[in-house]
Amino acid sequence: MRVDIDGGRLLRRLEDLAEVGAITGGRGERGSARLALTDADRDGRDLVVGWMRDLGLDVTVDVIGNVIAVMGPNCGHHSGRAPVLCGSHIDTVATGGRFDGNLGVLAGLEVIETVLSAGLELERPLGVAFFTDEEGARFAPDMLGSLVFAGGLTVEEAHDIRAADPGGPGPTVREELDRIGYLGPAPCPGAAPHAFVELHVEQGPVLERESERIGAVTGVQGISWTRVTLTGQSNHAGTTPMSMRRDPAAAMARIAVFVNDLAEEFGAPQVATVGRVEVHPNLVNVVPSRVTFTVDLRNTDDEVLRRAEAALAAELGRVADRHGVEVETEELARFAPVIFDEGVVDLVESAALERGLAVRRMPSGAGHDAQMLARMCPSGMVFVPSIGGISHNPAELTSDDDLVVGCQVLCDVMLDLVEGDS
Amino acid sequence: MRVDIDGGRLLRRLEDLAEVGAITGGRGERGSARLALTDADRDGRDLVVGWMRDLGLDVTVDVIGNVIAVMGPNCGHHSGRAPVLCGSHIDTVATGGRFDGNLGVLAGLEVIETVLSAGLELERPLGVAFFTDEEGARFAPDMLGSLVFAGGLTVEEAHDIRAADPGGPGPTVREELDRIGYLGPAPCPGAAPHAFVELHVEQGPVLERESERIGAVTGVQGISWTRVTLTGQSNHAGTTPMSMRRDPAAAMARIAVFVNDLAEEFGAPQVATVGRVEVHPNLVNVVPSRVTFTVDLRNTDDEVLRRAEAALAAELGRVADRHGVEVETEELARFAPVIFDEGVVDLVESAALERGLAVRRMPSGAGHDAQMLARMCPSGMVFVPSIGGISHNPAELTSDDDLVVGCQVLCDVMLDLVEGDS
Repeated sequence: MRVDIDGGRLLRRLEDLAEVGAITGGRGERGSARLALTDADRDGRDLVVGWMRDLGLDVTVDVIGNVIAVMGPNCGHHSGRAPVLCGSHIDTVATGGRFDGNLGVLAGLEVIETVLSAGLELERPLGVAFFTDEEGARFAPDMLGSLVFAGGLTVEEAHDIRAADPGGPGPTVREELDRIGYLGPAPCPGAAPHAFVELHVEQGPVLERESERIGAVTGVQGISWTRVTLTGQSNHAGTTPMSMRRDPAAAMARIAVFVNDLAEEFGAPQVATVGRVEVHPNLVNVVPSRVTFTVDLRNTDDEVLRRAEAALAAELGRVADRHGVEVETEELARFAPVIFDEGVVDLVESAALERGLAVRRMPSGAGHDAQMLARMCPSGMVFVPSIGGISHNPAELTSDDDLVVGCQVLCDVMLDLVEGDS
Repeated sequence: MRVDIDGGRLLRRLEDLAEVGAITGGRGERGSARLALTDADRDGRDLVVGWMRDLGLDVTVDVIGNVIAVMGPNCGHHSGRAPVLCGSHIDTVATGGRFDGNLGVLAGLEVIETVLSAGLELERPLGVAFFTDEEGARFAPDMLGSLVFAGGLTVEEAHDIRAADPGGPGPTVREELDRIGYLGPAPCPGAAPHAFVELHVEQGPVLERESERIGAVTGVQGISWTRVTLTGQSNHAGTTPMSMRRDPAAAMARIAVFVNDLAEEFGAPQVATVGRVEVHPNLVNVVPSRVTFTVDLRNTDDEVLRRAEAALAAELGRVADRHGVEVETEELARFAPVIFDEGVVDLVESAALERGLAVRRMPSGAGHDAQMLARMCPSGMVFVPSIGGISHNPAELTSDDDLVVGCQVLCDVMLDLVEGDS
């Protein structure tokens, strides 16, 4: 079954959603800031839910605020069978782009509107979901909504997580869900879909560099986030000989260099990032008393990722000894690599080829809701190129053509998944 | 001429001044917060000026708010000759201790009260001063008042400096001097004293470690403060291969390790500190776009200090190339090393030995008002031990015994300086 989506309609919905929480980048680029469960997120949710209801979909909100819209009797679908689901998220980081997450949700709406308009009779319904707090920028861990949906975290634990708001811990997930009107009745874990596909921008430079249009995503890199706190002795920067210092900033720097070198030594796909550093008291002429920083390690091979983690732990010990600082570590997130369903990956690849699009099988370097859904049902992802690999930035950009062909491939794959079952 | 100071009276005045702007440290230690030209600084000034007037001293306030109190006709001194001056500062950092600066001022008062009580007839008057904004915590540069007094900066330039208050630039020096009632009539540069001596806590660990009671300070380390801004490319931490990154945090870390290694390689007295680091956007899963940090380099040998600066500049270039980041540097402060008057240093050493106190000739790692006065007249300093080397912290502590013997050595040296001239 093949039917052509309406690219213009998709692009208009992307524009309309981007206006909610609109921000401007350094060179005038247009992005969005809709941190999870803020007023801006609520406004974005309300807009998308309105579109879902306009199509006559059955809209369900669950206890963690995930929204799932499925073809039901209102739009002429009576099978009662588990849906072929697609979706992603509509929350953003503080400096978010227009496509990260939003594309997968609005492309799903477009697929469903196309199928309804064409009057196709399907053996099982299609559905589209957006999951709460995928970014993790306001509530850790990221992919929170899909994690709870898939049964990876209890509702009670998730509800008690507090916002990392400026100026100290903010309200809990439950308080914010209630406040914005998205503390729904549907239970978690949710009912398993028949299959799940997520269309997403690559957020990396590979497809553009290789002049390919579609990524058939084979899996997601394992992620290891560690928060390290080093405590030394604050002292006058002029009067304390080097030999008598307990300097946590010097120690932090050694560890940051170590993980940077480690990633280069291990080679791709290993990556390592120190993205966050906080120094106390942060004065030019004071040896700091305390430095807190994060280490983000990722690899598609869990065995190698564990070696990287072990190397970091050993280096923390060596550097602590050398600089006389105390080390505390906290695991902020740890996800093993995910392997997507081979059948779904094949369908993505063949759908792209059938449309004449250059396609590459590739892992995802970022975490995505699809990796949580993979615990429940056959799952996969479709990537489209990110210009310059830029994401989490108003300068994030995918060409209109690529947005549209990505949506078309999503449509083709969802229809194949319905048919493959019949 | 020798006369014994009253240690109890000195300690009581230290306690009384510490109550003004009193703060409490993490373990209940008592410190003070009197940032320059705030209400708390005014209250501290008023208290000390009251004591000066109680002794009958001639009190002069100059256009930058420095206060100088000298024996005059009111207290029976009629020589009209330039005074042997001592002094320091009574402003503090936000997390100040009780002794940094305050000791040198109140010990000067104690010396003068002792001399007046003993009815000593002196060939030239003694005086005690406190200088404005020595800490530089609210108005940069530090040692502002003594710098202007010594003619190193014009009054107009100094008056226009704005406070680095929370939430953005605050009022100017002139506005704040006027507001707190310390915009005085005496001109700057001021009249050169006959000689200048400053008693100060070491603020470092050396005297305590070596079980010595008195430091005969030979000079002040040269200071070089550089603010470095590295600009790279913000990107997703999972999807950007290491080879395609322009990561300013990794670059900052390499430079921080470099300067730490450099100081160890050069050996004492070279020190190097990265005390301040700011990362943007400072998120765990985002390669930063920009990192700003400071490098504080100090040495007693200007030649070696210049070599350290040149090495830093070269490394900045190398690391910028390696990580593909842009470098901007700004010189925040640069003071050449200061050599104190050999005669004054000898007097400090011999006065200490005469009192049976273990003494060490040593440089100062911190900047002090005496280094500005050294441009005008023979100058020197007396150090007493800082327990644990801790300063700029409510936990700053010097034993009562050391406070008292330090004041006694100051008294002996000032009288020697009067006599040496007669």
